[in-house]
Amino acid sequence: MKEKILNLIEQGKYFEARNEICNLNVVDAAHLFEEIEQKYILLVFRTLPKDFSSEVFSYMSFELQKHVIDSMTDEEAIKILDDLYFDDAVDFIEEMPANIVKKILRNSDEDMRALINQFLDYPEDSAGSIMTIEYVDLKKEMTVKQAIQYIKEIGIDKRTINTCYVMDSSRVLEGVISLRKLILSDESTLVKDIMETGVMSINTHDDQEDVAALFRKYNFYVMPVVDMENRLVGIITVDDVLDVIDQEATEDLQKMAAVQPFETEYLKTSNWRLAFNRIPWLLILMISATLTSGIIQRYENALQSVIILAAFIPMLMDTGGNAGSQSSALIIRGLALGEIKTSDVPRVLGKEFCVSNIAGLVLAIVNFLKIYFLEGTGFIIALTVSFTLYFTVVLAKIVGGILPMVAKKLKLDPAIMAGPLITTIVDAVALVIYFNMATWLLGI
Amino acid sequence: MKEKILNLIEQGKYFEARNEICNLNVVDAAHLFEEIEQKYILLVFRTLPKDFSSEVFSYMSFELQKHVIDSMTDEEAIKILDDLYFDDAVDFIEEMPANIVKKILRNSDEDMRALINQFLDYPEDSAGSIMTIEYVDLKKEMTVKQAIQYIKEIGIDKRTINTCYVMDSSRVLEGVISLRKLILSDESTLVKDIMETGVMSINTHDDQEDVAALFRKYNFYVMPVVDMENRLVGIITVDDVLDVIDQEATEDLQKMAAVQPFETEYLKTSNWRLAFNRIPWLLILMISATLTSGIIQRYENALQSVIILAAFIPMLMDTGGNAGSQSSALIIRGLALGEIKTSDVPRVLGKEFCVSNIAGLVLAIVNFLKIYFLEGTGFIIALTVSFTLYFTVVLAKIVGGILPMVAKKLKLDPAIMAGPLITTIVDAVALVIYFNMATWLLGI
Repeated sequence: MKEKILNLIEQGKYFEARNEICNLNVVDAAHLFEEIEQKYILLVFRTLPKDFSSEVFSYMSFELQKHVIDSMTDEEAIKILDDLYFDDAVDFIEEMPANIVKKILRNSDEDMRALINQFLDYPEDSAGSIMTIEYVDLKKEMTVKQAIQYIKEIGIDKRTINTCYVMDSSRVLEGVISLRKLILSDESTLVKDIMETGVMSINTHDDQEDVAALFRKYNFYVMPVVDMENRLVGIITVDDVLDVIDQEATEDLQKMAAVQPFETEYLKTSNWRLAFNRIPWLLILMISATLTSGIIQRYENALQSVIILAAFIPMLMDTGGNAGSQSSALIIRGLALGEIKTSDVPRVLGKEFCVSNIAGLVLAIVNFLKIYFLEGTGFIIALTVSFTLYFTVVLAKIVGGILPMVAKKLKLDPAIMAGPLITTIVDAVALVIYFNMATWLLGI
Repeated sequence: MKEKILNLIEQGKYFEARNEICNLNVVDAAHLFEEIEQKYILLVFRTLPKDFSSEVFSYMSFELQKHVIDSMTDEEAIKILDDLYFDDAVDFIEEMPANIVKKILRNSDEDMRALINQFLDYPEDSAGSIMTIEYVDLKKEMTVKQAIQYIKEIGIDKRTINTCYVMDSSRVLEGVISLRKLILSDESTLVKDIMETGVMSINTHDDQEDVAALFRKYNFYVMPVVDMENRLVGIITVDDVLDVIDQEATEDLQKMAAVQPFETEYLKTSNWRLAFNRIPWLLILMISATLTSGIIQRYENALQSVIILAAFIPMLMDTGGNAGSQSSALIIRGLALGEIKTSDVPRVLGKEFCVSNIAGLVLAIVNFLKIYFLEGTGFIIALTVSFTLYFTVVLAKIVGGILPMVAKKLKLDPAIMAGPLITTIVDAVALVIYFNMATWLLGI
């Protein structure tokens, strides 16, 4: 299909191509435009029906949007922008270079400019930055019939008409009513008698992560956003929340892997940026590993006389790191999903203590059997390695379980207390135990 | 509020408590029931209005649901079950012990029993297992007025009336029409003239991860599910997809942290289960670390003569592990979100080669300055450590970037190719380079 349309365009059959494109889903149509040769893009785009074209536009990449707007007349550009939902328009403006933003703003009326500036001011990752303004507002004195009539008149431009909002004269949110309820109710009923009151709402400055938590918990499809005076200023729809959830999970994962979070797609991120986002943590962790070097140097003599001790250091370090990562990953995720609260510290401590003892024992026993019986390592050495292994696993799991909760309690992001950092801590303690036990048991 | 209601119940003021509960969101009401003393639960639950109570029931934990159903008469239980949406009912039945399932099935009519069994048969994680059957079906010859009238009659029991489905006589899906479109269209228009055709649908046996990808890409709120003959059998709503997305992200994270995935919440999972899900990978990784022990033992003599070499082993291992985790985490997440395809191997290889060289150089230089100038390590040793560090970072990042893609290509889960496994591989190679370089440069 894609090939066919691209061929039609190459052959100059724009209107045939247009008809095929109009049969596509808008998302697919937008992706198709990414593959059309630059010189044809505007030609084809102009043939599309107006409503369809602005929807397609909203799903294009920022680079393509920039190209399209750049090559249009001011009038055309404004028409496209006017047809966008407001949140898409703001997202677009945020990404455009100054000359395009100017082009847009000088052609907008004053109210629109003020509104755009207000939206650009919302902090990144706040509810305000993901809300839109196209909602249906009803009055509580309307009958169901009047309300439906009103929706018919104004609904075409709204993001959703499935949920409608009832406000008083100063725009304070009074209630919510679903289109479903309207349709299923008697025509003469008053909106105020069937609307839902005491509606849960979001504040413009709430963090988008908290917004996602509410959608998750209550299975909402849309939620109202209010300002400090409880006036309705916008709505957030579940499709935007889906993006937030993906984004937050990606961010947590990046932090857990000791990468400075970034929002662009991997393949679209420059190599310098990728390197720059990874180097700081690698440096910090490398330098903090000085601790382990220091410990080994302190026990240089013990090591020199029983050199075989060195052979087990990587295994001990790796197993400690793995054991700690397991615990911290589960706790970090549990905290992110709200399944674990900071008040659960004693329970987590109890569970990790128990789990780590089981895991530590199993690993220590298997390790002892393996290195003593299979590999013929000396008894005392095997004992030292196995005991250290046991202790390392217990320590790693407890540290891995607790540190993310401590971070959360200190209002830090739990995700930075993941594997890498915990490994560094556990490594040092494990080495001290290892060498102390070795010097004591071997009498060196 | 919660305290107040619990107090009212303690004082036997059930109807006052009931009124307060009815003002709560159903999710909050369900959570409240988890805290009511067991002897009061059924008493209070029975006072709730019928519609409200079955909604509250659907948000209760399985243990509480079991308790409620167990203490009810068969008749009461069936009433509750009948009022549940079908997907909630199936989820409930799946979790209940045999005696309760029997109680339910013997009181259901034959059609319902057949349907329940059909749903229980859908593979876990398939589209069939998350769909529900309460959708609105329209006929294409209906006028908009007739369609709306029909929705008014049957809509009350439907999961959503915002999207309606048009089928032919053999239930093959012909089109989709939104309530929005119906409301905004002229009453005399025929459904077939305004319905959307060529609708994207899901097959009952599609993986839920693929379903989530479609919702993500196209911003759907609901999608139709069809069987092998393209007959409509159910719908999937976005709130269930939200759960899937959380679940898949959790599962990937667990695998990346070398934990056997499990679906229950951390705090609700037994310690044995938690231990059991962690030990296999810890064992596998521990045993594969034998490789590193073997390498160190092979170079025992070199190590013995320059014991300081041992001091840098943990730092080299940790940095290699961290560098590899960074790359693998980004690639695994990119693959999961569909931002990276298996055909991108050359691009990923190119990017990781470049990024790893930048990161490797920076780390090696900082490390050299630190150990040679600050710590007074010998020049040759510092050179050996820094060169090995550089090489380890480059290797770790390339292996970390490519292995998840290889896994995907082999139809394995990329998430298992994460930090721990890659660390083990990189450790071994890094040690070989380290000792070879040391023996060569130091002439030992």
